[in-house]
Amino acid sequence: DLGARGSATIGGNVATNAGGNRVIRYGMMRENVLGLEAVLADGTVVSSLHPMIKNNTGYDLKQLFIGSEGTLGIVTRVVLRLRQLPRSQNVAFVAVPDFQNLTDLLGRIDAALGGTLSAYEVMWREYYELVTSEPATNRKPVSTDAPYYVLIESLGSDQAADEARFEAALEEMFEAGVIIDAAIAKSQAERDAIWAMRDDVGQNARHAPIQAFDVSLRLDDMEAYIAEVNDALRTRWPEATNMVFGHLGDGNLHLITGVGDGSADARHAVEEVIYERLRPRGGSVSAEHGIGLEKKPWLSVSRSEPEIALMRTLKQALDPKGILNPGKVF
Amino acid sequence: DLGARGSATIGGNVATNAGGNRVIRYGMMRENVLGLEAVLADGTVVSSLHPMIKNNTGYDLKQLFIGSEGTLGIVTRVVLRLRQLPRSQNVAFVAVPDFQNLTDLLGRIDAALGGTLSAYEVMWREYYELVTSEPATNRKPVSTDAPYYVLIESLGSDQAADEARFEAALEEMFEAGVIIDAAIAKSQAERDAIWAMRDDVGQNARHAPIQAFDVSLRLDDMEAYIAEVNDALRTRWPEATNMVFGHLGDGNLHLITGVGDGSADARHAVEEVIYERLRPRGGSVSAEHGIGLEKKPWLSVSRSEPEIALMRTLKQALDPKGILNPGKVF
Repeated sequence: DLGARGSATIGGNVATNAGGNRVIRYGMMRENVLGLEAVLADGTVVSSLHPMIKNNTGYDLKQLFIGSEGTLGIVTRVVLRLRQLPRSQNVAFVAVPDFQNLTDLLGRIDAALGGTLSAYEVMWREYYELVTSEPATNRKPVSTDAPYYVLIESLGSDQAADEARFEAALEEMFEAGVIIDAAIAKSQAERDAIWAMRDDVGQNARHAPIQAFDVSLRLDDMEAYIAEVNDALRTRWPEATNMVFGHLGDGNLHLITGVGDGSADARHAVEEVIYERLRPRGGSVSAEHGIGLEKKPWLSVSRSEPEIALMRTLKQALDPKGILNPGKVF
Repeated sequence: DLGARGSATIGGNVATNAGGNRVIRYGMMRENVLGLEAVLADGTVVSSLHPMIKNNTGYDLKQLFIGSEGTLGIVTRVVLRLRQLPRSQNVAFVAVPDFQNLTDLLGRIDAALGGTLSAYEVMWREYYELVTSEPATNRKPVSTDAPYYVLIESLGSDQAADEARFEAALEEMFEAGVIIDAAIAKSQAERDAIWAMRDDVGQNARHAPIQAFDVSLRLDDMEAYIAEVNDALRTRWPEATNMVFGHLGDGNLHLITGVGDGSADARHAVEEVIYERLRPRGGSVSAEHGIGLEKKPWLSVSRSEPEIALMRTLKQALDPKGILNPGKVF
């Protein structure tokens, strides 16, 4: 389930190893491709359309093509793994008093929901205020003022029984002090309304020109990282906005900055603030959106020289003339 | 959780992309490796020790080394993904009247248990009789005579609540006629006793010389495949035994044959029976055990010429002198 639902294609999902809202439960696209067919640079069609979940016969060739953005071969067919449709959905929106409790809550709720946790989507306070103030039409599910808010979702098999467990789990979290307020959706309309807030990223257009980032890093590093980024942005641009939200259950944050005049120089300066602070933390400049052209100059933040050299070895071996999606990735 | 627990190493698990009993819930080793370090043929150390679940910065280099049996590089360090420890375990042993109900049951119980199904281990009648007859010490959990038996396990968060759901799900299956008998373990000792039957593969030594196979194929193809294999074995060797059991939830079957005199010719003839019938079905000669030397002659059953050519391209690019685990895989 992707923010780009409606425009994303299966092929694009495979080429970029797309993620989305429910990776915590179902994995990235890579985990959901059983087999594929690809056309190599020399025109050979490699048909590896296997339907098996388990298949350890030589190298797992599909892995080469998934996420390589068309630079090693062109994916022409895929076999996808399907899952049982969940029979129940429970959604809550909770307020969390500090970052430590945000990470504690993730581990605790995952254990308490025993395999049914499907989303853990965090919104920093500024994002929450943005999507619940006019012209946005979302209403605030909780009125408590807190630095962090989380959309928690469980997908299971029995609406009534799962709801009872979900409520008990949240009550346990409330008593332990890891959450300070909670709204549990009681109808499909209420569940949809909570998700609508998370999906309402279009509100960021108010702060145009904007730049969108998609990073991942250790949970333990996130609080300091975001604080440093915000300090650096506001030191240079006192009016800077930085909306932070994302799939925290997967270590994946989205940042949308509204900074500067949109000039190439300003954009580069913002990228430098965001990306260079990932380098010492071993973070990723692209959690789920690939590299393409835009992030190409920043690949070295997340990949060492030997890694990039190995990528070049693969590229050279599979596409010696450089005819596949030329100039992309590195 | 592997049959080889106690002797398997982390490095071996990574090199062969090992599977095991709970792949249906946690995935193969590939899904549980976040990052790794490998030494290439030229001595370069490629350190790709990333801790992130999501990281789409260029090619996913770890995939090259996972499951390639040391032929592209030597894995020296890995970062593993950890999971929350389940708080509850429910195990049942059920009798199923025919193959169609075996596949129906898998889909139904997966949906009914909503994300908590962790094992669906099938035993063909002969295997069940083997592990519950002397000198084996296992007792039969159900006395009903049936062609198939299944160990069903759910790992969740609340023993009492999960047990109620588990029982309700099995009752639903009983009423629908997909199962004809069931024993639900009521204590840890009973749960362990059911798993002990599944793990008691050592009983096959009674039929020595034995040969062990590890195949995967579409669920829809399995019944006819096993029937054909048994016919072919018994036509040639009237006393042939073929014990079939496995991780059916992942499409993975284990076959242990007791056939012939153990000579190289007899062994080859048995392999031919087992493997050649996978070819028209697009099955895998190695679901979770790799290729090594033993299955090398049979790789073409599961991999086409263009696939093997692409594997050679990779091998040539990464190990041009052929010094890494020489002669293995292909």
